[in-house]
Amino acid sequence: MDKQTRFDLPESALPRAWYNINADLPSPLAPPRHPQTGAPVTPEFLEVLMPRALIAQDAASAAEIEIPEPVREVYKLWRPTPLLRARRLEAALETPAHIYYKYEGVSPVGSHKPNTAVAQAFYLEDEGGRAFTTETGAGQWGSALSMACQFFGLGCEVYMVRVSYEQKPFRRFVMESYGGSVYPSPSPRTAAGRALLERDPDHPGSLGIAISEAIEMAAGSGGAKKYSAGSFLPHVLLHQTVIGLEALQQMDLAGEYPDVVIGCAGGGSNFGGIAFPFVRENLRHGRRTRIVAAEPSACPTLTRGVYAWDYADGAGMAPIIRMHTLGHGFVPPGIHAGGLRYHGMAPQVSALLDAGLVEAVAIDQLDCFEAGVLFGRAEGILPAPESNHAVRAAIDEALAAKAAGEKRVILFNLSGHGNFDMAAYGRYMAGELERYDYPAEAVAAAMRELPEITDGD
Amino acid sequence: MDKQTRFDLPESALPRAWYNINADLPSPLAPPRHPQTGAPVTPEFLEVLMPRALIAQDAASAAEIEIPEPVREVYKLWRPTPLLRARRLEAALETPAHIYYKYEGVSPVGSHKPNTAVAQAFYLEDEGGRAFTTETGAGQWGSALSMACQFFGLGCEVYMVRVSYEQKPFRRFVMESYGGSVYPSPSPRTAAGRALLERDPDHPGSLGIAISEAIEMAAGSGGAKKYSAGSFLPHVLLHQTVIGLEALQQMDLAGEYPDVVIGCAGGGSNFGGIAFPFVRENLRHGRRTRIVAAEPSACPTLTRGVYAWDYADGAGMAPIIRMHTLGHGFVPPGIHAGGLRYHGMAPQVSALLDAGLVEAVAIDQLDCFEAGVLFGRAEGILPAPESNHAVRAAIDEALAAKAAGEKRVILFNLSGHGNFDMAAYGRYMAGELERYDYPAEAVAAAMRELPEITDGD
Repeated sequence: MDKQTRFDLPESALPRAWYNINADLPSPLAPPRHPQTGAPVTPEFLEVLMPRALIAQDAASAAEIEIPEPVREVYKLWRPTPLLRARRLEAALETPAHIYYKYEGVSPVGSHKPNTAVAQAFYLEDEGGRAFTTETGAGQWGSALSMACQFFGLGCEVYMVRVSYEQKPFRRFVMESYGGSVYPSPSPRTAAGRALLERDPDHPGSLGIAISEAIEMAAGSGGAKKYSAGSFLPHVLLHQTVIGLEALQQMDLAGEYPDVVIGCAGGGSNFGGIAFPFVRENLRHGRRTRIVAAEPSACPTLTRGVYAWDYADGAGMAPIIRMHTLGHGFVPPGIHAGGLRYHGMAPQVSALLDAGLVEAVAIDQLDCFEAGVLFGRAEGILPAPESNHAVRAAIDEALAAKAAGEKRVILFNLSGHGNFDMAAYGRYMAGELERYDYPAEAVAAAMRELPEITDGD
Repeated sequence: MDKQTRFDLPESALPRAWYNINADLPSPLAPPRHPQTGAPVTPEFLEVLMPRALIAQDAASAAEIEIPEPVREVYKLWRPTPLLRARRLEAALETPAHIYYKYEGVSPVGSHKPNTAVAQAFYLEDEGGRAFTTETGAGQWGSALSMACQFFGLGCEVYMVRVSYEQKPFRRFVMESYGGSVYPSPSPRTAAGRALLERDPDHPGSLGIAISEAIEMAAGSGGAKKYSAGSFLPHVLLHQTVIGLEALQQMDLAGEYPDVVIGCAGGGSNFGGIAFPFVRENLRHGRRTRIVAAEPSACPTLTRGVYAWDYADGAGMAPIIRMHTLGHGFVPPGIHAGGLRYHGMAPQVSALLDAGLVEAVAIDQLDCFEAGVLFGRAEGILPAPESNHAVRAAIDEALAAKAAGEKRVILFNLSGHGNFDMAAYGRYMAGELERYDYPAEAVAAAMRELPEITDGD
C-alpha cells in the first residue's frame, strides 16, 4: 500500500447528496437586485429565465440536497472520478510534500462542467421545459450543456463568441455532434445581436454579448426556453460539490488529510466544487485546512477586486450581485485561460474570502504554462490552461514545503485536460505568450461604473 | 447491483503479466525474412534496430511475460481503465443485448497506444539506450512514445507525415510538450528524405516514407538510437493484452461473459489487446466467444487481402512478413481513420484468422461516423474514427440480437476518444465524407508486386 498511486471509489460510493454551503456561510447571501430598479429581484422575475428548482436551490439553506437518481445515473458514465497521488511530480520537485490531484478531465467533454449541466438539464426536463439557451466562449461549457440536453431530450441553443466560432471550430463540432445548435454571436437572431451587426457586420463578439443574446432568447420565448449558466450561481457551485465530496472519501482511502486544498477560480464553480466540502470540515469539525483559489494575474478578481454590488454581465442587463468584482466593464487581456476571464466572482466564494475563510493567489499565464508542461512531463496529463493555475499553485506549495523542510499534504482540482488547447501550448513553446502586468488602469476605469446600491449592504 | 454501470478495478488488480499468444498459436510464427536476401533474419540484424528484450519477446513462447514493476507504476497513472455497460446505448437501440465497452481513452494521450510505448521505453532505458526514432501519421503514436520516453529519460525523434505536420499541428504540440523532437517527413535529415525533397521540395509525405526515415536514423546511429513500432509486431500486441486481461476480470465483476468480443483493426494492436486473452479462454477453457476484427472497407486487409509474404513497409526496405496483406504498394483512400490505413496485418492476428479462430468485418467510414455520433449521444464519449469501426460492429451485433430476439453479451474495445478528430466529425455532419467502394484495381495492382518466397511456406 505504501506505493499506492490511485485512490478510486467504486460506483456505490458516488455521493447521494450535494453539499449546500449556504447552510454554513457566516451570513446569508444578499439576494440579487434588479438591473434597472436596484430592488431585490422576485422569484417571478427569475422564473422567466430559469427552472424553478434551480432558483430554489440558490436560496436553499439545507446543508444537503439530494442528487436525483437520473442525475446519478448519468454521473456514472464518468464518476466517481479518479484521485491520484502525483508521486512522479513529487520526485521531480524533490519535495517532502504529498501532492494529490482530483481529475475531472475524464468526463466525456474533458472537464468538470457536466456535473452541473446534467443536473440543470434534469430539472428543466422535470419541469416540462423543452430547451436551454446559453453562451460559450471557446466551447467548453457549450459542449457540456449540449451533451446534457441530448441526454434528457432537450434542445440546446448555444451563442458562441464569433471569433471562437470561426477560429476554433472543433468544440463547435463537439456541440453539434451532441445535437446542440450553435450560433456565432453577435447573431441576427436577437435585438442585441442585430444592433451590433448593423454597426459592424464583422463584430468579433464577446462573452458578455453572448450572455445577453442567450438571456434575450430565453426571456422572449414565452417559457419555451430557459437560460442556463455554467458557473457563478449558487446552484452551479452546489452541483460541483460532488467533486469535493468524492475527494473527502478518497483522501480517507489514502489515509491522509489535506493541509491545503487548491482550485482555479474564474466564475468560481470548480473551485467551489473541490473546496466547499473542506470548508465545511474546517467550520464544523475544527480542521485547519488552507483553502486557496488560484486566479489569473490578468483578471485578479479576488486579489485586486473590491467586494461590492455589480452587474453579473458586461452590459449591465443581468441582475446586480454582491461579489468580488473588477467592474463589469473590465475587459481582461486575451489570456488563453478563457474560462477565467470573468470580471466577477461567485457570491458564495466572495463571501468566504471576505470572511477570511478562503484565500487567493494571482498567477501569470507564463508561470501557469510552465507548470502545465512540468506536470505533463511528470504525470502525463497536459492540463487545460485554466487548470494550470491550480497546478502552479500546488507546485508553489510543494516548493514552499521543500524550502521549509516540512511535509505538507496538498490536494488540487485538475478540472480538465488541454486537448482542445494545444494551440496555446504551441504558442507557449514558441515563446509567443506574453506576461501581463496588473491592468490597473482598466480596472480603475471599470470601478467608476459600479452601480450604487447601499441598502442591505 | 441490477443497475450497475461501471465495473472498475482497484489499482491492486492491475495485471502482473502480459499474455503471450505465441504460446497458443496453432503453429509457430514464421520468422521474418530479410528484405534483400529473402533469408530468415538473424537477431543480430534486428538488434541494430530494436532493444534486445523486444526481439526476444517477439519470439518468446511462454504464455505469461512479467510486466516490469516500473512499467506497472506508470500504467497506474491511468490503469486499470474503466469497463462500462452501455445501458443508455442499449436503450436507444431497444436491444435485448448487453453491450460492454472497455475504455482506453482515459490515458493521458487519449488512446491505448501508451500501453506499449511505456514498456518499450522501459526496456530501451534498461538496456542503456538513449533515444527512440519512430514515425507517426496524425500523431497518435508519436504522442504516446514522446510521453513514454520523457518518463524514462530518453530522447524521442518522431518523423511526422508532412501534410499532417502542417495541417494538424495540435498533436505535434502534444509531442513537443512531452519533449519529443518532431520532424516533417520527408526531411533533409535522411538520405531517403533528401532524395524525395530533391524531386519535390513540397512532397506531402506518407507513413511508408516516415517509417523509412525513422529506420534509417536508427540504423545509422551506431546504436545511439533504436527504432520503435507502434503496432503490428508481436511485442506490441503482447503489451496491449493488459486491456483484455483487465476486461476478463471486469466481466467477472459484471457477472457475465461475452458472446462476442470486438476491436477495430489496422496494424492489429488494439484488437489483439482486447481479443487475445479471450482467444485463450476459447482455446484452453472451451469458451465459444466469437472474436471479431472490424476494419475499414477502404483498406480491407483481413476480409479481402491474401495470406502471403510481403514487406512490412511500403517501400520494400523493411523485413518480409507472412501476413494478411493488400500488397505493400497499396495506398488506401484518404479515410479519416488514419490509424487503420495499413496494407498489412499483425502476423499473430493473420495466423488466427487463417486458422478460423477470429473473424473479420469491413465497414465503410460513413457507417462508422453514424455509429460514433449515436454512441456519443447515448454514452457521452465521441470516439476516435478508428474506434468507431468497433462501435459500428458492436451496434450491428446488438441489432442482430434484437432481430433474433435473443440476449447477446457484447464487449468491445473503445480504443480512444475523438478529441483530436473533430474536424472529421465536422466534415461528416456537413455531408462532406465519401463512401468508398472496394478499391479492387489498386489492390490487384499491388498484389502483382508481392515478393516471391516459397520455402517454409
